Amino acid sequence: MAKVLINGYGSIGKRVADAVSMQKDMEVIGVTKTRPNFEADMAVQKGYDLYSAVEGRESLFEEKGIDIQGNIFDIIEEADIVVDCAPGGIGKDNIENIYKKYNKKAIVQGGEKAPFVEDSFNSLWSYDRCYGKNIIRAVSCNTTGLCRTLYAINSTTDILKARIVLIRRGADPNDAKRGPINAIVPNPPTIPSHHGPDVGTVIPEFKDKIITSAIIVPTTLMHMHSLMVETTGTTKDDVIDAIEKTPRIFTVSAENGLDSTATIIEYARDIGRPRYDLWEIPVWEESVNVVDNEIFLMQAVHQESDVIPENIDCIRSMLKMEEDNIKSIEMTNKAMGILK
Amino acid sequence: MAKVLINGYGSIGKRVADAVSMQKDMEVIGVTKTRPNFEADMAVQKGYDLYSAVEGRESLFEEKGIDIQGNIFDIIEEADIVVDCAPGGIGKDNIENIYKKYNKKAIVQGGEKAPFVEDSFNSLWSYDRCYGKNIIRAVSCNTTGLCRTLYAINSTTDILKARIVLIRRGADPNDAKRGPINAIVPNPPTIPSHHGPDVGTVIPEFKDKIITSAIIVPTTLMHMHSLMVETTGTTKDDVIDAIEKTPRIFTVSAENGLDSTATIIEYARDIGRPRYDLWEIPVWEESVNVVDNEIFLMQAVHQESDVIPENIDCIRSMLKMEEDNIKSIEMTNKAMGILK
Repeated sequence: MAKVLINGYGSIGKRVADAVSMQKDMEVIGVTKTRPNFEADMAVQKGYDLYSAVEGRESLFEEKGIDIQGNIFDIIEEADIVVDCAPGGIGKDNIENIYKKYNKKAIVQGGEKAPFVEDSFNSLWSYDRCYGKNIIRAVSCNTTGLCRTLYAINSTTDILKARIVLIRRGADPNDAKRGPINAIVPNPPTIPSHHGPDVGTVIPEFKDKIITSAIIVPTTLMHMHSLMVETTGTTKDDVIDAIEKTPRIFTVSAENGLDSTATIIEYARDIGRPRYDLWEIPVWEESVNVVDNEIFLMQAVHQESDVIPENIDCIRSMLKMEEDNIKSIEMTNKAMGILK
Repeated sequence: MAKVLINGYGSIGKRVADAVSMQKDMEVIGVTKTRPNFEADMAVQKGYDLYSAVEGRESLFEEKGIDIQGNIFDIIEEADIVVDCAPGGIGKDNIENIYKKYNKKAIVQGGEKAPFVEDSFNSLWSYDRCYGKNIIRAVSCNTTGLCRTLYAINSTTDILKARIVLIRRGADPNDAKRGPINAIVPNPPTIPSHHGPDVGTVIPEFKDKIITSAIIVPTTLMHMHSLMVETTGTTKDDVIDAIEKTPRIFTVSAENGLDSTATIIEYARDIGRPRYDLWEIPVWEESVNVVDNEIFLMQAVHQESDVIPENIDCIRSMLKMEEDNIKSIEMTNKAMGILK
């Protein structure tokens, strides 16, 4: 059993903890939290051993009556790997100040920048490259979604150039501080946005083929992507077939009622997904079209959860627990209830 | 003085009425309303002669104490032209049932379909084509915005292909019935959307060069467009220069604080625009980029007002009041306070 420490039990950390717990070949030896809030309390209620993410803050938890086992330095030596789920930018500091000092393998999240890690992980594209490595980045929700779709497309035709417009959710559902409430925000206002180059860290051969622009809108449920992918030639049926054959991406039909991010999340709620997480990327079947060898399609990305199964596969790759990425994907999927 | 009748004093109609009133060479001889609501009352308060849009409904207005002059058929014969501002789809019926019967020139709005009119109007592209014609469509806010930007681009380089993603406002600010409140909606879920072909009705030579996809988001202020335009070659400076030289389109700077549709509308409020209308198309200067001869840029569209000056120019064209479109644009702009 691989021993996994989750550093930062927030939006991503709590989901990774639950996903690790579901696997047969790994276990959570502890989770950390900076502050004794409801999530810290919940972690203990769920049976996770809780540690303060900062040395000397244990008493804050005790004062709130939250059972605390110590701080991260009391448990880190027992870990085979740390999944760092700290807020964006903190992971970089943790690499230098904690993981490298303790000689621990660590996964940081997509909020960190590529130069601070050995490589960028996606289960389909870079499992082999990350095999046995020490400091790896599980890329962001948007990059993960794009990597899966481009994998499907790449499996049926050659990609010449991809133009992608990202319509991003303004805030996560639990976030009452951020906006916009009633505006469309070009963010960044410059083109290209960083999203294309970020895909390039996972798929180097696409580095100069992808140009992205990004816009933030007043919604919390999901991101949306409008993809325009020039290829050497394909058909709508071949693209849909490739999507169906690719793990963690499927088609939905607006005609069938799944006509917005709202009904897609309703679907995730109805099929009993924990926290209504949709780990897979839904692509609107009606939107798939091929004009002059260029594929057009629209897809949604559940920003809180699509990266969770990738974190699990990343653990297996870095700890050399399974050589074959498809086998790891299948193990993760089976344990979590991901259909394909 | 050209005598103009406004059929439908709603979101567009009340703005067209005010804009006509500002011109030296035309006047409003009446406005119509289907129901005696606050807008009907306001029309009378502002000094417009009010007529029932439907025969026999005059008493409804009288019961509410709203001064009514009769119905549309009591005034239509005096009109040189009718600007039809009825809700989308009604204009088509009005063409057949009213304007053709009374042999009246009429402008319908962008909610009507192209096959029901003689031609589609934009001040820059089709003023000459519509000159003296009888039934013309002033195209939608989105099509108007795209026509202006493509005119600017076309003035400095040759357009090979344009890909455009439209991020549309969910409802107008006065509309408490429509959504979405918290969702992103692919609308239509198919690609291409109708917006590309609609631009083609104004600019036939671009008919097969434009492919659009459209998405609706929870905001009321403005639409946004992300444009990707392949050309035979140009530079960022040339594009910005072309925008500055084109009427009714200008650049804004996110760095300068105009970083979303919210601050752009704040700008329109601060400069004293009636109803905070922004008749011009703002393009984010930072977003303008040229990569491999392809222009990338992002722009916003004030859905309630960018078509208003075009309606005025369309009147002049159809009534042969001014042969030169640039002179009409200048007259309209000067009267309304549009800077260029």
